[in-house]
Amino acid sequence: MYKVGAQRQEQYLKELQEFLKIPSISSLSRHKEDVHRAADWLAKAFEEIGMDNIKIVETEGHPIVYADWLHARDKPTVLIYGHYDVQPSDPDELWETPPFEPVIRDGKLFARGATDDKGQLFIHLKAIQMLMEEDGTLPVNVKFVIEGEEELASPNLPPFIEDQTEKLACDTVLISDTSFIEKGQPAICTSLRGALAMELTVKTANTDLHSGSYGGGVPNAVHSLIAILDSLHHKDGKVAVEGFYQGVPEPTEALRKEVAEIPFDEEKVKSEFGLTAMSGEQKFTFQERTGIRPTLEINGITGGFQGEGLKTIVPGEASAKISCRLVGEQDPGQVYERIQKHIDAFTPVGATVQLQQYIKAKPVSLDSRDPMIQKASQAYEAVYNTPALFPKEGGSIPIVEVFARVLEAPVVLMGFGLPTENLHAPNEHFQLENFTKGIETVCYYFKSL
Amino acid sequence: MYKVGAQRQEQYLKELQEFLKIPSISSLSRHKEDVHRAADWLAKAFEEIGMDNIKIVETEGHPIVYADWLHARDKPTVLIYGHYDVQPSDPDELWETPPFEPVIRDGKLFARGATDDKGQLFIHLKAIQMLMEEDGTLPVNVKFVIEGEEELASPNLPPFIEDQTEKLACDTVLISDTSFIEKGQPAICTSLRGALAMELTVKTANTDLHSGSYGGGVPNAVHSLIAILDSLHHKDGKVAVEGFYQGVPEPTEALRKEVAEIPFDEEKVKSEFGLTAMSGEQKFTFQERTGIRPTLEINGITGGFQGEGLKTIVPGEASAKISCRLVGEQDPGQVYERIQKHIDAFTPVGATVQLQQYIKAKPVSLDSRDPMIQKASQAYEAVYNTPALFPKEGGSIPIVEVFARVLEAPVVLMGFGLPTENLHAPNEHFQLENFTKGIETVCYYFKSL
Repeated sequence: MYKVGAQRQEQYLKELQEFLKIPSISSLSRHKEDVHRAADWLAKAFEEIGMDNIKIVETEGHPIVYADWLHARDKPTVLIYGHYDVQPSDPDELWETPPFEPVIRDGKLFARGATDDKGQLFIHLKAIQMLMEEDGTLPVNVKFVIEGEEELASPNLPPFIEDQTEKLACDTVLISDTSFIEKGQPAICTSLRGALAMELTVKTANTDLHSGSYGGGVPNAVHSLIAILDSLHHKDGKVAVEGFYQGVPEPTEALRKEVAEIPFDEEKVKSEFGLTAMSGEQKFTFQERTGIRPTLEINGITGGFQGEGLKTIVPGEASAKISCRLVGEQDPGQVYERIQKHIDAFTPVGATVQLQQYIKAKPVSLDSRDPMIQKASQAYEAVYNTPALFPKEGGSIPIVEVFARVLEAPVVLMGFGLPTENLHAPNEHFQLENFTKGIETVCYYFKSL
Repeated sequence: MYKVGAQRQEQYLKELQEFLKIPSISSLSRHKEDVHRAADWLAKAFEEIGMDNIKIVETEGHPIVYADWLHARDKPTVLIYGHYDVQPSDPDELWETPPFEPVIRDGKLFARGATDDKGQLFIHLKAIQMLMEEDGTLPVNVKFVIEGEEELASPNLPPFIEDQTEKLACDTVLISDTSFIEKGQPAICTSLRGALAMELTVKTANTDLHSGSYGGGVPNAVHSLIAILDSLHHKDGKVAVEGFYQGVPEPTEALRKEVAEIPFDEEKVKSEFGLTAMSGEQKFTFQERTGIRPTLEINGITGGFQGEGLKTIVPGEASAKISCRLVGEQDPGQVYERIQKHIDAFTPVGATVQLQQYIKAKPVSLDSRDPMIQKASQAYEAVYNTPALFPKEGGSIPIVEVFARVLEAPVVLMGFGLPTENLHAPNEHFQLENFTKGIETVCYYFKSL
């Protein structure tokens, strides 16, 4: 067994904090240089741990960082994927400490990207460094593909993978960008939902109009937008778009049983997030709704006057961000077309709509009986004294489907986050325990291959 | 007949531009000092035209500026009301020139407050100055009550009027804060709708949640908000709140005829504002819907992620600004309670709502046969060669009802704006012609009393 120890932990965390200080928010164009700075930082970190062939591959968006170490003759090759870009940090005022000034408190490291995915990604670099220090070599060949556009749904990574199938050939793809069931209970996700994200813009006039002079007489863009949006769901939580559920498999009893086995404490979730009720499709459990069923959620809405006090206007424009999670055989392109058709049908007279598409990713399913996944579960057990469970994750990592299909290699989603670590929200953090034990687990896993 | 002439016009406009440079936005607390600066500027302007008893009256909010000139023995007393505060200027990027850098182009003065109400208010100061220059005295006694909270619905003016009924005693109240029917066609508004403004906040969780892990399983604050908001109107444009129309008089044939006589060019309005259709209560004409019928409009909506790109969250909070225009015997307090009751009934499980009330103003009706109003119409005719029409204005000036009731004096709404001058919107402006002719009209009116 490899042990990180206090001295190494302190040093590793110091390095990780440097990484987290870089506001590499891929979705905001004003942070373009910061994103590149994070790529440069990572390339230097690869150099320091003795990786070869380090390359910053420029794309139409943010760069991909590649590195490898291929000196373990006759041993399997592990391709490690991760991402160095992060979500936006707003609303900043809800952070207890600034999002890009990493702070350790209560055994947690707080910063945007701490768990998603800089902290989890860094585990692999440090595992390799530790193996090198202890053994002078690595028990496997390693290839890193780390991108800066995961939070944008990886628009430029699929062509890179498709162009480099030989260079990227591997026996397994290892990704740490998912979560435990809860503290102490590791999990290897075996199903990821697909994704489709859009922005809907509604216009009724070329300007805002005075509500005293025109209110009640002209179309109101906010009224039109909410009429469209409210039509997207039935009252019972089902998505009302015609054909939305086409390709969604009826869950088998076996699957429902497997999903039900994942521990879930409804009262705990409710109290933690201040929920007064759960909601969604009534025929399904919470775990099913968030794991194996498709969804349509409005992620944001904006229109008219939003400042302090009031402004008596009839808004001329309003917009909303919408995203879907897809499962089974649902095709993102087809779902997009059906939503477009639904919106057209429900657009009130006097309004014009535009539906812009951001993300399109197919759902993916992995086989928990695959030896690579089984060995990963044993590695967890060696460190955490309990084998991994195999949950169906509700989130989407669009690139997983591409890796599995193009490289024809089993993908292992060996996550070290916790579901309560506020990823995509204020006060994101990462448990120090999982950082340290994560490094030890990866060392064990590599040795076992 | 008094004539302003080119030289005076140039000087007066220079002064008005100084006034317009002060961003006296009453609804934004960061402009509190600017609002006070506008009050100071106005007090100095009163001094320069020879007014007496100039006072800046502090209130719990922004100050009231008082001034008088009471040397016209045996002549009537005119109380002039106006406001020196302005609407917020956002969205600033839609202004062709900055809102607080006044510019003259195409015979119009562009700036926030140009027509609402600094420009119109300034007409009275300059009319008095001109009369003084020409005659060495004034043909009437004058009292000015100019407030800095009209855009907040005058929260502190009613107690001031009620406390000072003797000091404010007058034969008529003169207000220039309304519009012509169109260029060349003056109007004296004889009916103002009441107003009720609110902010609705919906909460479903104490934080935004990741839509991949929680979407489809927990309440979404934006979904809840739009469900509530969409329930406020029937599909035919009628307000769906139970009891909303109580106290709304069925329009008589005579009133409908009077309203129909106000010229209105639907195609022109549509093309000017880029509308593809009109909307609202189907049983009524556009002029009726915007003049004598009550309305409920959403003025703004906000919730979740609104930045560039996307963020896959389930929003935990969302809010909307809502305002009503009221007519007849509708009571703002009662309407508020009915809306609150409706919202409670339509709030989805899992959401908690809060409805904050901002503005409450009763509707008001004036008699076009009153001699003061008739003389005002003749003054318009002397300058514009056409008598005024008497439209029912859709907007609200909450204080008019208080003046009429407490001071028991006829109110004359002698406006000089145009309905196309973008008040409460970007690129607000004021026709120079109406500024100059407005001064001449007021001079004529004062002489006629």
